[in-house]
Amino acid sequence: MTESGEKNPGIEAQRAKMSFLFREDVAPGLRLEMDLNKILFTSESEFQQIDVVETFFGKTLVTDGKTQSSQMDEFAYHESLVHPSMLRSALSGTPPKTVFIGGGGELATAREVLRHKSIERCVMVDIDGKVIEVCKKFLAEWGGETVTSDKRFELVVGDAHKWMMETQETFDVIIMDISDPIEAGPGIMLYTKEFYEHALTRLNPNGVFVTQSGTADAVPAKHQGAGETDTSCYGPINNTLRTVFDCVVPYSTNIPSFGGDWGFIMAFQAPAGCEDKALVEKEWKFPASTDVIDNLVEQQIEGGADKLGLYDGVSHMSMFALTKALRNLLKNDTRVMTRDNPVFMY
Amino acid sequence: MTESGEKNPGIEAQRAKMSFLFREDVAPGLRLEMDLNKILFTSESEFQQIDVVETFFGKTLVTDGKTQSSQMDEFAYHESLVHPSMLRSALSGTPPKTVFIGGGGELATAREVLRHKSIERCVMVDIDGKVIEVCKKFLAEWGGETVTSDKRFELVVGDAHKWMMETQETFDVIIMDISDPIEAGPGIMLYTKEFYEHALTRLNPNGVFVTQSGTADAVPAKHQGAGETDTSCYGPINNTLRTVFDCVVPYSTNIPSFGGDWGFIMAFQAPAGCEDKALVEKEWKFPASTDVIDNLVEQQIEGGADKLGLYDGVSHMSMFALTKALRNLLKNDTRVMTRDNPVFMY
Amino acid sequence: MTESGEKNPGIEAQRAKMSFLFREDVAPGLRLEMDLNKILFTSESEFQQIDVVETFFGKTLVTDGKTQSSQMDEFAYHESLVHPSMLRSALSGTPPKTVFIGGGGELATAREVLRHKSIERCVMVDIDGKVIEVCKKFLAEWGGETVTSDKRFELVVGDAHKWMMETQETFDVIIMDISDPIEAGPGIMLYTKEFYEHALTRLNPNGVFVTQSGTADAVPAKHQGAGETDTSCYGPINNTLRTVFDCVVPYSTNIPSFGGDWGFIMAFQAPAGCEDKALVEKEWKFPASTDVIDNLVEQQIEGGADKLGLYDGVSHMSMFALTKALRNLLKNDTRVMTRDNPVFMY
Amino acid sequence: MTESGEKNPGIEAQRAKMSFLFREDVAPGLRLEMDLNKILFTSESEFQQIDVVETFFGKTLVTDGKTQSSQMDEFAYHESLVHPSMLRSALSGTPPKTVFIGGGGELATAREVLRHKSIERCVMVDIDGKVIEVCKKFLAEWGGETVTSDKRFELVVGDAHKWMMETQETFDVIIMDISDPIEAGPGIMLYTKEFYEHALTRLNPNGVFVTQSGTADAVPAKHQGAGETDTSCYGPINNTLRTVFDCVVPYSTNIPSFGGDWGFIMAFQAPAGCEDKALVEKEWKFPASTDVIDNLVEQQIEGGADKLGLYDGVSHMSMFALTKALRNLLKNDTRVMTRDNPVFMY
Repeated sequence: MTESGEKNPGIEAQRAKMSFLFREDVAPGLRLEMDLNKILFTSESEFQQIDVVETFFGKTLVTDGKTQSSQMDEFAYHESLVHPSMLRSALSGTPPKTVFIGGGGELATAREVLRHKSIERCVMVDIDGKVIEVCKKFLAEWGGETVTSDKRFELVVGDAHKWMMETQETFDVIIMDISDPIEAGPGIMLYTKEFYEHALTRLNPNGVFVTQSGTADAVPAKHQGAGETDTSCYGPINNTLRTVFDCVVPYSTNIPSFGGDWGFIMAFQAPAGCEDKALVEKEWKFPASTDVIDNLVEQQIEGGADKLGLYDGVSHMSMFALTKALRNLLKNDTRVMTRDNPVFMY
Repeated sequence: MTESGEKNPGIEAQRAKMSFLFREDVAPGLRLEMDLNKILFTSESEFQQIDVVETFFGKTLVTDGKTQSSQMDEFAYHESLVHPSMLRSALSGTPPKTVFIGGGGELATAREVLRHKSIERCVMVDIDGKVIEVCKKFLAEWGGETVTSDKRFELVVGDAHKWMMETQETFDVIIMDISDPIEAGPGIMLYTKEFYEHALTRLNPNGVFVTQSGTADAVPAKHQGAGETDTSCYGPINNTLRTVFDCVVPYSTNIPSFGGDWGFIMAFQAPAGCEDKALVEKEWKFPASTDVIDNLVEQQIEGGADKLGLYDGVSHMSMFALTKALRNLLKNDTRVMTRDNPVFMY
Repeated sequence: MTESGEKNPGIEAQRAKMSFLFREDVAPGLRLEMDLNKILFTSESEFQQIDVVETFFGKTLVTDGKTQSSQMDEFAYHESLVHPSMLRSALSGTPPKTVFIGGGGELATAREVLRHKSIERCVMVDIDGKVIEVCKKFLAEWGGETVTSDKRFELVVGDAHKWMMETQETFDVIIMDISDPIEAGPGIMLYTKEFYEHALTRLNPNGVFVTQSGTADAVPAKHQGAGETDTSCYGPINNTLRTVFDCVVPYSTNIPSFGGDWGFIMAFQAPAGCEDKALVEKEWKFPASTDVIDNLVEQQIEGGADKLGLYDGVSHMSMFALTKALRNLLKNDTRVMTRDNPVFMY
Repeated sequence: MTESGEKNPGIEAQRAKMSFLFREDVAPGLRLEMDLNKILFTSESEFQQIDVVETFFGKTLVTDGKTQSSQMDEFAYHESLVHPSMLRSALSGTPPKTVFIGGGGELATAREVLRHKSIERCVMVDIDGKVIEVCKKFLAEWGGETVTSDKRFELVVGDAHKWMMETQETFDVIIMDISDPIEAGPGIMLYTKEFYEHALTRLNPNGVFVTQSGTADAVPAKHQGAGETDTSCYGPINNTLRTVFDCVVPYSTNIPSFGGDWGFIMAFQAPAGCEDKALVEKEWKFPASTDVIDNLVEQQIEGGADKLGLYDGVSHMSMFALTKALRNLLKNDTRVMTRDNPVFMY
């Protein structure tokens, strides 16, 4: 049967009653559900289910049912992942020339890296060539051809872990833009103490390592009682990096399409002879003035502050000043991730 | 961020955690929610929102958020709507030659009509030309080109109510394949006593009128207390037809993609001089043998019983034998639909 | 924060935006979602999660997340399960005196059995004493104290399979009111050829066996290609009973709170010397007149037809006349359930 | 039917398939859905629907379908609302003695106020006495009897707007803990320029006004094009306060049970003769050292820092340093709320 008549005045009320929806678990027992306007692409690669959809948050890449990044706030995720480490490196007196990206198939991480005037080489290793193709085609705003045709950029379709174990190259900044360590997932090795130890050997002096670190929502009750049932990996990654690096600085940014605050952790070595590593961390987190960061942005970024939507001196403080609730949550977490004792996120 | 690693062994578990979904209200407080694989088409016509999707039930036409018919069981809906009335007409001694279809944009109602060897003319009036185009393109199995290129078939894109009021033509069978009478909807006039009175004048002797009639789930508690809160239109259509026709026979078929049992009502005049109209109804509902129907199918349908997926002699009994619960529900409903006192379905 | 002000005129619109919900899978990829008004009871027994809730369908017993029966249509389920077999037994010349119920914890199956004037003994074996207590307390309308205090009724809290294997007793009617055979479930043995063979030895001459049989929605596409992926158990139970009994008669009833049509199958031996078992089945399914059933109801049921909400002569035809689509589905299913080769429902 | 057998080993898988759920709109087209364990209380007051449930976030008060506060993070909401203003007042040289709370029915806002050693009087005006009773009974941890029996606390059940218009009293801090300005809601007057002008007259010298301000998720695309379609009220409240107060300072905190970052805005007058109001704001937002705040906490709060779960010097920076994305969003919003031109939130 079909409708027969004039334009339905109650069409919006009707639309409200139905829905095409995208629903995603953000924690066991908590889901984000949003209107789904279009399914632009759906297929399986050798490695995962790949969907490109248009939702409440605009165009969105979804792999294996997890939002990877969305049009409305991908800038916030990718700027948060890239710029603090790049500028930290610059602040150390070494404007970064070489960057390794593990994962990063959307190309937006590379896009942000390539904004830095000092960059000479950016190599990205992602195992799923199909994701890259799909992003170039459907999510060109994320970087696309502009990134892949940049002469400073080298794309390797392959296993990031294997590539890192085999390379002799070293980098100023290493950026891990990979999926969370889930039980079923293959990326688990890239979150272990063993990998971080190796990554440190692939960093130049004054080099900086950074990884996305899953949800940073301060939900303390989830942590009461049992690490087993804790489903975030923010604490474990923080602890594991601390077994390897002198300075480890967790930070976070609100990414609405991820369902709340998202965690990142950067790690680097203290200057030779430094005795107060905590002070080094603190001076980075809370510089004497927000101008320190604003000036670095102006120096390093092609086009200056106008090119960035999220990051500047004040945002830096917002990102690095974790709330007491989140700090307590990290403090109370003692889990360390090793090859033999991985910690799985939900 | 994107996945980096080997084929995810837990991909199905992950898929289970997420979902692209289609959710539809079937009653106030009751919804059907199903996996949504693809959105094949989405647009608005002059009259309504039109979506073609692929769900649990296969390809599905959705207008203004309501499932119109789906690949898995459209045959059940369209055979139920068409064949009983056509065969009733044949049984009366007049194998039907002319049929009017109000609505029917998917073309599947016409497809079933055209299976009848006796058909010489089938005119279909649907207001939304875009629905027809979309169905021809995306739902060719419903009928498509095969129907529209049939010389016996005439398509009128226009207002079915207006067309019927203006035509001088009369028909052996009139089939109303239109949306439920919802408050916002324009089809409300096609469910009134006034329209039925006029339709009777457009029927040939021995002619049969049939209309889809909304949900026929026997949910008696919804009916306790107040007609106001009753959201089905099965009872009101039944009552309204009874104010006009001698014989009114409600029947139902299970249509899973509609969320349960679906109602249809056929109506016709008793033979001249007939004094026991209830007996006429009963003899039609429960023929002496299922062979009566099976033989009619064999005579009337090009290709015979093999061409039908739902309807035969035994199915006829299943359809016309309403449960006591449903009969009670109809019996207790006293609402009649007139131009001035329409009854709105949910 | 809390509201501060006058009665909110848009409260219903607001309510519509939120929801307490009960969502249940009815098939892989299809869910029923309904408003949840109250959670009356929630706990775990030794065997399963037990919830009593109030939803769109009224008060409802839910075990392990599956609706067992609901206030609005439990009468339809329990009358369908009980009366056809009881009356078949009566029609054979033996008004049933003794009945065994496997499962049946809600007590409503026993309630329907005890309506039959001829009943002298009804023994019910359900493993979960807590379900029975909960039903007595929260679902008294289902039977409750009235059933358990009836002198003809004996309650055994124990394993129905074990009890049947050990008893020397025989019965006029055996009614299996147990959960569907799901992979995780323990009831699987009660759906095997081996159990049916034993059950036959526990039936008196002219005895009738009946079991609930899961969904009977005619969804043929689910069956295309692979029995493996078929998630209904209606066909397998039908086939399995046919390896044991002379006459096997599947029937179905629309149970909205179960999400559509529900299957039942009754089985019995043909009269000694009978050569046309199909005819015996047919004569039962489609009696010469609906009066046959109506008269049996009047004779057998204390209080007569007024006491029943679903079952009578016309409903009998509705239930036993399966649509062609459903008959084809059963015909194409060849699976048989044995101890070594069980078939799991979703 | 009921289960019959041994403890179901797949019970958790089964539980995963079903769900009791609480679903709440957080924006038009975006919903938070969470497991619902219990409905502890459900009723309607004279003013609104009141539910107390137990969800993923623990015990939660829900009114008219909107989460008011939940066990897991109510401390973050109430500390954010109360302490910055109280300490600002103390920093101005006037440890606050008198506080007015508009709304606040959960009593947790008063709980935080009463932690301040300098408090002599806290008057709270909430229109819905039933909410207060329900919170005392079911959410005693929020404050309950401890608050209502505190001699410094006065409870007025009545209209906060009316009370403020009629009182002659003035306060050191005015805290507005009321629902968002939704179209249907009565609290709309409490968000207008006219109310803020009056509130300023009810503040003592050095007094501070603060109001919760709805979602502070930086979702810029919602703001592209049209203020009309913008559904947040953070910008409008900010703009409106600026038409009245010298200094207006928006801040935000991550409140997972509200679905992301939540906005608050405090407002106060600059010191007499001050020419650079922006500098006054900046010095408050980013004090020379986090010790400034930590010392104030230690001085003012009974029991010191140990009593607070969220607020301290570093959290202060996290809260007052808004990201560039959120600052841009506020900057681009020009809406002002007046009695004649209110702005409605979703």
